[in-house]
Amino acid sequence: MEAEKDQAKVWFENLRDRICAELEAIEREMGSEAVFVRNVWQRNAAAVPPKWDEHNPPSSSEATGQCYEDGGGGVTSVLKGKVFEKAGVNVSTVHGTFSPEFRERIPGASATGQFWASGISLVIHSRSPRVPAVHLNTRMIVTEKCWFGGGADLTPTIPDEEDARDFHAAFKGACDRFDPDYYPRFKAWCDRYFFLPHRNEPRGIGGIFYDNLETGEWAKDFAFTRAVGEAFLDIYPRLVRRHMAEPWTEAERAAQLVKRGRYVEFNLLYDRGTTFGLKTGGNTEAILMSLPPEVSWP
Amino acid sequence: MEAEKDQAKVWFENLRDRICAELEAIEREMGSEAVFVRNVWQRNAAAVPPKWDEHNPPSSSEATGQCYEDGGGGVTSVLKGKVFEKAGVNVSTVHGTFSPEFRERIPGASATGQFWASGISLVIHSRSPRVPAVHLNTRMIVTEKCWFGGGADLTPTIPDEEDARDFHAAFKGACDRFDPDYYPRFKAWCDRYFFLPHRNEPRGIGGIFYDNLETGEWAKDFAFTRAVGEAFLDIYPRLVRRHMAEPWTEAERAAQLVKRGRYVEFNLLYDRGTTFGLKTGGNTEAILMSLPPEVSWP
Repeated sequence: MEAEKDQAKVWFENLRDRICAELEAIEREMGSEAVFVRNVWQRNAAAVPPKWDEHNPPSSSEATGQCYEDGGGGVTSVLKGKVFEKAGVNVSTVHGTFSPEFRERIPGASATGQFWASGISLVIHSRSPRVPAVHLNTRMIVTEKCWFGGGADLTPTIPDEEDARDFHAAFKGACDRFDPDYYPRFKAWCDRYFFLPHRNEPRGIGGIFYDNLETGEWAKDFAFTRAVGEAFLDIYPRLVRRHMAEPWTEAERAAQLVKRGRYVEFNLLYDRGTTFGLKTGGNTEAILMSLPPEVSWP
Repeated sequence: MEAEKDQAKVWFENLRDRICAELEAIEREMGSEAVFVRNVWQRNAAAVPPKWDEHNPPSSSEATGQCYEDGGGGVTSVLKGKVFEKAGVNVSTVHGTFSPEFRERIPGASATGQFWASGISLVIHSRSPRVPAVHLNTRMIVTEKCWFGGGADLTPTIPDEEDARDFHAAFKGACDRFDPDYYPRFKAWCDRYFFLPHRNEPRGIGGIFYDNLETGEWAKDFAFTRAVGEAFLDIYPRLVRRHMAEPWTEAERAAQLVKRGRYVEFNLLYDRGTTFGLKTGGNTEAILMSLPPEVSWP
């Protein structure tokens, strides 16, 4: 799988570069010189396992051995600009060995416990309440199996039917070129996943979400994951440019800060990547880069 | 236990009234007419069990039956003022029956599953970064056992040695009148509990935390829990008055909003009352009243 791993890693980093360049171009169009600031981090084997305590009790499996031995690392890229109040883009490529007990929980890891993972994850919080927030994440995981997962979802403060239609159409287009079942399945999965049961409300307007995608044709699955990234790069900048020059009211800004509170609630209470990452010694700054710059619970 | 239940319930409500009156008095001293706004809520048996979904999967025990049948309710009291940006005080008294499977996890509930609980919970977010935030919670739980639990902890933005010394001394005084072991035990418990492992930092400067307090002398345990409330009512207003007229800088305010972000992270990632409450169909507005009015993750 070494060639495939390299291709995927290069793709995620290349997609990151293109997304960052596009967001910087949007900043310039609005007269801002804001650019992404990058920070390289390495997974430190010595930092694993995390210090278990009463908040963070080991599961019965984790208590008996190291969660995994780590290698690899990543790069965080953060832009704080005029259009994008906080845009964070992470790429990371990590590898290691799950503890014997942990292996049962990961597809294809039960025999050797070895894994490799690479991906891109981004969250963009726009300054204007008229420009929607967005999330994108795609990744490739290799154990004895090899699969892709990811998705993208849009979180507007002010619902906009045209935006919603175009956002969904972009991902439907990406899906339909691969399998007519993908879009309905992955859209429904997204709606289920990005939902706050304690509020009985969705996080945003959805998008697509998929995981464990392994059709048996790696090249096809990789092409689909690239298509998801391309769909994002096509549609999100269009939505931003559609709204970024619109004036907004204080009431709209206040509503945005409340909506962001729901985003925080989702990420800290339910998002698996966030809670799993924080509780297994992941890079806190990279994981919590998704949290909005200003939030209110009035 | 009916007389004891009544005494505890009346105490918690009376403490609430005295705390609210004191905070309103502080507002008036600063020229504000802000008062607490009360909202009565009832536990709705029909709303339990919560809708399980993929974020909120039932445990193997919970999947097989209702978590509990509910009765009772509570009152939220919220003040948004000049000194106190958001002060939320909840009292609630609820009762019911745990499902057979759930009973094993609660002391004294294994036979009949019946429980009764009453308590007060408050979180105060001051406007000034020079006035510390604070949390207090005390409660009485009855199953076949009967115990008290609770605690208080202080979260300053700007460390102040005199405040810390006086806050700790107030609770040490309350503890020492009952048992010389209480203070060292309950202070250490607080330090362990209010800690963010993913940040490797404490939430604030601590205080005391205790649970399952059942010495065999109900009157003594109740008196201790009252002493904790009295200690709070003695010390916190003194700390507020000590600092409320001090000017503060933009940098101090910015630091306060970041500190509040840590508070949010703790409450949503680790606090048992919050996460258990939200995931078992508790009153969302009452539970999340603890979240700060303005927060930032810069």
